[in-house]
Amino acid sequence: MIKLAVVGATGLVGETILEELAKRDYDLDIKLLTSAQSASQAIHFKGRELITEVLGPDSFQAIDYALFAIDGELAKVYVPQAAQAGCVVIDNSSAFRMEQSVPLVVPEVNPAVLKTHQGIIANPNCSTIQSVVPLGALRSYGLKRVIYTTYQSVSGSGRAGIEDLVRGQRGEAPQFYPVAINNNVIPQIDDFLADGYTKEEQKMIEETKKILELPDLKVTATTVRVPLQSAHSVAMVVEMEKPFDLAAVKQLLAEAPGLSLIDWPDYPTPLQAAGREDILVGRIRRDNSAPNSLHIWCVADNIRKGAAGNAVQILDELI
Amino acid sequence: MIKLAVVGATGLVGETILEELAKRDYDLDIKLLTSAQSASQAIHFKGRELITEVLGPDSFQAIDYALFAIDGELAKVYVPQAAQAGCVVIDNSSAFRMEQSVPLVVPEVNPAVLKTHQGIIANPNCSTIQSVVPLGALRSYGLKRVIYTTYQSVSGSGRAGIEDLVRGQRGEAPQFYPVAINNNVIPQIDDFLADGYTKEEQKMIEETKKILELPDLKVTATTVRVPLQSAHSVAMVVEMEKPFDLAAVKQLLAEAPGLSLIDWPDYPTPLQAAGREDILVGRIRRDNSAPNSLHIWCVADNIRKGAAGNAVQILDELI
Repeated sequence: MIKLAVVGATGLVGETILEELAKRDYDLDIKLLTSAQSASQAIHFKGRELITEVLGPDSFQAIDYALFAIDGELAKVYVPQAAQAGCVVIDNSSAFRMEQSVPLVVPEVNPAVLKTHQGIIANPNCSTIQSVVPLGALRSYGLKRVIYTTYQSVSGSGRAGIEDLVRGQRGEAPQFYPVAINNNVIPQIDDFLADGYTKEEQKMIEETKKILELPDLKVTATTVRVPLQSAHSVAMVVEMEKPFDLAAVKQLLAEAPGLSLIDWPDYPTPLQAAGREDILVGRIRRDNSAPNSLHIWCVADNIRKGAAGNAVQILDELI
Repeated sequence: MIKLAVVGATGLVGETILEELAKRDYDLDIKLLTSAQSASQAIHFKGRELITEVLGPDSFQAIDYALFAIDGELAKVYVPQAAQAGCVVIDNSSAFRMEQSVPLVVPEVNPAVLKTHQGIIANPNCSTIQSVVPLGALRSYGLKRVIYTTYQSVSGSGRAGIEDLVRGQRGEAPQFYPVAINNNVIPQIDDFLADGYTKEEQKMIEETKKILELPDLKVTATTVRVPLQSAHSVAMVVEMEKPFDLAAVKQLLAEAPGLSLIDWPDYPTPLQAAGREDILVGRIRRDNSAPNSLHIWCVADNIRKGAAGNAVQILDELI
């Protein structure tokens, strides 16, 4: 019997974590932790009825693993408490990702670093997760530079994002995003930094280097919210050291764990990726504007694979 | 009195050409040409009522200027007929853009080539027009490489695109796009070429080099349809020969004809650009992944500035 806590169990990511857990055969004793607002709700899990409890300092006694799906500020308070209570934490927020003692893990790319954990394991940003899997598959070519340009769905902002899109479709003003997302695209995700980048862009840049263990990799990013419910797309330009054969690259991507190649003249779209656990890549083309440069169009369900799926995959590795 | 023909007068571009013409003080005798289907319609122009006529081989007798806004296949037939009849043609299709004898003109960037015309002048692709204006402003830094990643609205496909988005919002299947555009993004605009690029991507690449008169410029593109009605956005990465000061680059862009800078922490969005005649740039940042490299986020109304506006600006230059 594994004693597991899911923190933020009624959020979009928490809910999907439970769906992913329900697909597994683990013998689980699950504690569902939420804010006071969402406490005492009944949640069905594999024919059982679980009641949500208020998250507090004593929530983690005798818990083996805690999956956190709450925002960074709250995570900063409760994640260390959970780790101190002896529980192994998988945290979905950005609060601990860049700390040296915290492994940042995508199981298809860097499972080995999991062993180095000291009680806290970080789950990367959703756009980063789907992007580093194809990059990881290409490591043997020598990665030099990556340019990310994203098309991110509103579910990346949780329920508030979806509600704002629906609000816009009804002709109402936005309440969550700074400007309307319906009939629009917003080239801002998360807050701005002083250098003009957003935190989302910084996360993609820094997390990519950490996960791939390539501190000198050149990475840049432009992250953009688009008016759709599910799945993120990333247009990637990947410059490599070594020349490549396009057919060989396609085969490598098609056979890599976690990836599915939707090959030319077909291509993956967000509607197609929604609900899937694999990452779809397509539009694999030579970029003729630089030597050994490649275009990849990469689409994944940001909750199903990104946030929730990757966290449960990390749990799989630990168990 | 200038004798002018607008070909494809009832389409989205043709209609906007008439709106742009109505803002000017020219003394015009306008002939509206359409397919048989759209003929004999009454169109209001500055208080007058004009009746559409069927486009045919004899449509261009005694016409000074003809603005074509019909598809490439039809343009291939009628544009040469109009030019032979002695009329100066401004053609919005891609049919003649890459012909050496045909100037491809964005008045803010290369007005001088207009003088070389032999009866046919080509209006560039809408995404290209908005992108080359900021690039033109940066020419003194020595342009080396440009990476385009686009977010193109459905009005780029004309009425058929808008109807498909509305159809999707009503839960109906697409009739124009190969897959649903509502709640989706489609990484395909126009047909595919054998090398995996789309014709839209090829247009952006080749037209950029021709307009800037930089045949050796390195250019690559990924063009994507997004579910919104109006205005295209282009995320541009621009690598230059010379080092730059970010404030100086911003000032150059802010002062360039046809451009408006929406500076950090604000930024332009498609909703904001819709209906405007200027091109909005923002999110001007240093790209730290390469020397002398710059990020530009560029938004414009693809019909108002792109297709129709640029064609009428060319007419202004000719008159």
